[in-house]
Amino acid sequence: MDNFKFWSPTEFIFGKNTVKHVGALIKKYGGTKVLVHYGSQFAVKSGLLAEVKNYLRDEFIDYVTLGGVQPNPVDTLVYKGIELCRKENVNFILAVGGGSVIDSAKAIAAGVPYAGDFWNFFDGKVTINRSLPVATVLTIPAAGSEGSPNTVITKEEGALKRGHGSPLLRPVFSIMDPVLTFTLPASQTANGIADMMAHVMERYFTQTSGVEVTDRLCEAVLLAIIKEAPVVLREPENYDSRANIMWAGTIAHNGICGVGREEDWATHGLEHELSALYNVAHGAGLAVMFPAWMQYVYTSGIDRFVQFAIRVWGIEDTGNKKETALKGIQALKDFFSSLGLPVNFEQLGAKKDDIDQLICKLKINSGGALGNFRRLDMADARAIFEIAAKS
Amino acid sequence: MDNFKFWSPTEFIFGKNTVKHVGALIKKYGGTKVLVHYGSQFAVKSGLLAEVKNYLRDEFIDYVTLGGVQPNPVDTLVYKGIELCRKENVNFILAVGGGSVIDSAKAIAAGVPYAGDFWNFFDGKVTINRSLPVATVLTIPAAGSEGSPNTVITKEEGALKRGHGSPLLRPVFSIMDPVLTFTLPASQTANGIADMMAHVMERYFTQTSGVEVTDRLCEAVLLAIIKEAPVVLREPENYDSRANIMWAGTIAHNGICGVGREEDWATHGLEHELSALYNVAHGAGLAVMFPAWMQYVYTSGIDRFVQFAIRVWGIEDTGNKKETALKGIQALKDFFSSLGLPVNFEQLGAKKDDIDQLICKLKINSGGALGNFRRLDMADARAIFEIAAKS
Repeated sequence: MDNFKFWSPTEFIFGKNTVKHVGALIKKYGGTKVLVHYGSQFAVKSGLLAEVKNYLRDEFIDYVTLGGVQPNPVDTLVYKGIELCRKENVNFILAVGGGSVIDSAKAIAAGVPYAGDFWNFFDGKVTINRSLPVATVLTIPAAGSEGSPNTVITKEEGALKRGHGSPLLRPVFSIMDPVLTFTLPASQTANGIADMMAHVMERYFTQTSGVEVTDRLCEAVLLAIIKEAPVVLREPENYDSRANIMWAGTIAHNGICGVGREEDWATHGLEHELSALYNVAHGAGLAVMFPAWMQYVYTSGIDRFVQFAIRVWGIEDTGNKKETALKGIQALKDFFSSLGLPVNFEQLGAKKDDIDQLICKLKINSGGALGNFRRLDMADARAIFEIAAKS
Repeated sequence: MDNFKFWSPTEFIFGKNTVKHVGALIKKYGGTKVLVHYGSQFAVKSGLLAEVKNYLRDEFIDYVTLGGVQPNPVDTLVYKGIELCRKENVNFILAVGGGSVIDSAKAIAAGVPYAGDFWNFFDGKVTINRSLPVATVLTIPAAGSEGSPNTVITKEEGALKRGHGSPLLRPVFSIMDPVLTFTLPASQTANGIADMMAHVMERYFTQTSGVEVTDRLCEAVLLAIIKEAPVVLREPENYDSRANIMWAGTIAHNGICGVGREEDWATHGLEHELSALYNVAHGAGLAVMFPAWMQYVYTSGIDRFVQFAIRVWGIEDTGNKKETALKGIQALKDFFSSLGLPVNFEQLGAKKDDIDQLICKLKINSGGALGNFRRLDMADARAIFEIAAKS
C-alpha cells in the first residue's frame, strides 16, 4: 500500500425534498452573492431553477444566473462566468445540474480570484491556490464532480479537452435528490452509469499490491451498480434504485476507491479525444474505450483481471487465468451492451479513418504517454483505438 | 433508502513516516497552544511522544501534556484536562493514542468552552455547540474515533459508560502510520478487529431496505478484515496487512457504512455494561455479545442474515434460510475464536450471576430499551446476556 492523503470535506445532503435546504446551506458556508450556474435543458424546464431561486430569496440571498452549459463544457462560457462574477461581486458559485455544469462552475470559481487566464490551470502552468466556494444541486449521477476535486473543460479553439484538480474545488455541499433523476432519458442514465463504473475501474486497475480494503470498496460500488442499473432503466421512477445509482456515482469519484495505490486514467485520456472530436457523451465513449483498453493491457497484470472477473462478475475460477480474465472483460462489454451503450466505434459514431487525428490530439494533450497500469505510448494508444474500431 | 447527511471532513494522512507532519498540520488548522493527550503505556515507552514534542518544537508550537488515559477512559481525567486547558489557554487538542485517548481528548475539547459540567453532554441534557479542534496520531486501529464524531466516557462514580456525538468532534486531521501498530500485542490487535467489525455490523443489520451501495460497502470492509486479520496476527510486522486493518477501522466508523438506513447499536449498549463492570476490553466484550445478539434476533429479519452468511462468509445458499443464517452466525463466532477472542462469558471473565446487576445498569443507561433491528426491552437484553453466558 502506498502512503496517501484522503480528504473529502463535502457535506452531502441526500434524499427526497432536500433542495429546500439550499438557501440555509449557502448562508452557513458564507455565501451572500451567488452565481447560479445551470445547463441548457433540465434545470429550467423542470422548474428546478425557479425553485432554487425561491429558496435563495427566502433567505434574502442575492444572486445572478448564468445558463447554457452544454455537455463537454467549454472555456468560452467559463470566461463569461468569470467576468460576470467579478462585475457582480459574486462570492459563491452554485451549480444546478450534472457534471458539465459543476465542472464549469469549478473553473469559474477558480478563475475569479486569479488575475491571469484561467486556462493556465488546465495547461498545467499554474496551480490553483484560491477559489470561490462551490456547491451543487445535482441532477445527473455520472461524473462524480459533486464530491470530487476535479473539473474537465474543453477549449473550443482546437477542441482541447483537459482536466485539472485542486482540493479547493471540492464542493462545500452537494444536495442530491434522486427524484430529480426520475426523468433522465435512458441513454443519459446509461452514459452516467458507464462513467461512474469507469471512475472505479480507473482506480481498480493498478500495479500497487496490498490494498485489499480499497479493492473491496471498488468491487462493492461496481456490484451495487451492476445490480441497480438494469432496474433504473426498467423502472425510471424506482426511488431506491435511482438513489443507489446516485450515491454510487459520488463514492466512485470522491477518492475513497483510489486511496493507497497508483491509479491509471489512460482510458479517460483516450476517451477525451473521442468526445472532443465527435461531441459524444463521455460515458458512451468510455463504454467503447474501457473494454478495448482492457483487451490490450490485461496480460500486464493478469491476476488483477482474474480477480475482477471472479469478484465483480461472478465468473467461475477455472484456473486458466487468460480465459477467466477475458470472460470478465466480455462480461463488462455485455453489460454495457445490455444497457444500450455503444461498445465500438461504429455504435458510437466514430470512424476508424479518424484515428490519425485522434492520436495527433492525444499526443498534445497527454504529452505522448498515458496510464500507469501499463504505461502507453502513442503506438499503444493507436492499437487500442483500433481494437475499439473493429470490435 | 432513508434521507441522510454525510459529512466526513477529517484529513487523513496515512502511511509510513507521516508523524513528522504533525506540527505543520496543527499550524494549518490554527493551533498555537496544544494539549498533547496520551495513554499510560505505548506513547511514552515507544518514544512516539518525544518525537511528537520534537515536531511541535520544530514549528515553535507551545504545548502542555496530559497522560494517563486508561482503556474505558474516565470522567475524572476529562475534568483534569478541561481545567489544565483553561489554565494554560490551550486552543487545540492532540490525541496521541488509540480510541480511549481520542475519546478522552474529544470530551476535553467539548468541555473547555462549555461553562457547565461536561457530563451534561453524556447525560443527554445539553448538545455540544462549540469545541476546540481535535486531531489525532493514531496508535491502535479499533475504535474508529480518529474519523468519527463520537466519544464514549465512563463516569467513575457508578461506573456509568455513556456515548455522545457531535459533528464538531470529528478530528480535523488524523495521522495514521501503520508501523506504529507493529508492536501491538496479539490480544489488543484482535480486540481492535472485533471492535471495527462490530462497527460495521451495527450498521449492516437494519430493517431499512433498498440501500445496496451501503450493504456492499459494509460487506467490503468485513471481507477485507476477514482476509487481513489472520495475517496481522501471524505476521505482526506485515506492513500492508497492518495498513489495511488500520484503514478498515476508520472506514468502519466514519459513517459511510451507515448512510441511508437505520442503524442498530444494541450490541454496543449491551457490551458497555460488561466493560464498565469488569473493565474488560470493549472489543473482547463485543466478540462475546455480537453472536449472542444475532442468535436472539435473527428471525426478525432473516433475509439480511442470509445475505450476511452468503456474501460475507461464503456460506452456500441451500434455500433453507434458517440454516444458512445460523451458519453465518457460527462462522462469525468461529472467526472470533480463531483470533483468540472470547465468545462467551466464561472466556471473557464475566459471571452469569452478575446478569441482574448488568440489567440494572443497562436500564439506567439505555432508558429501558435499545436497538432498532429489533427493539429490545430488558427481558430481551437479559435473554441475550444469558445466551452469552451459556454458549
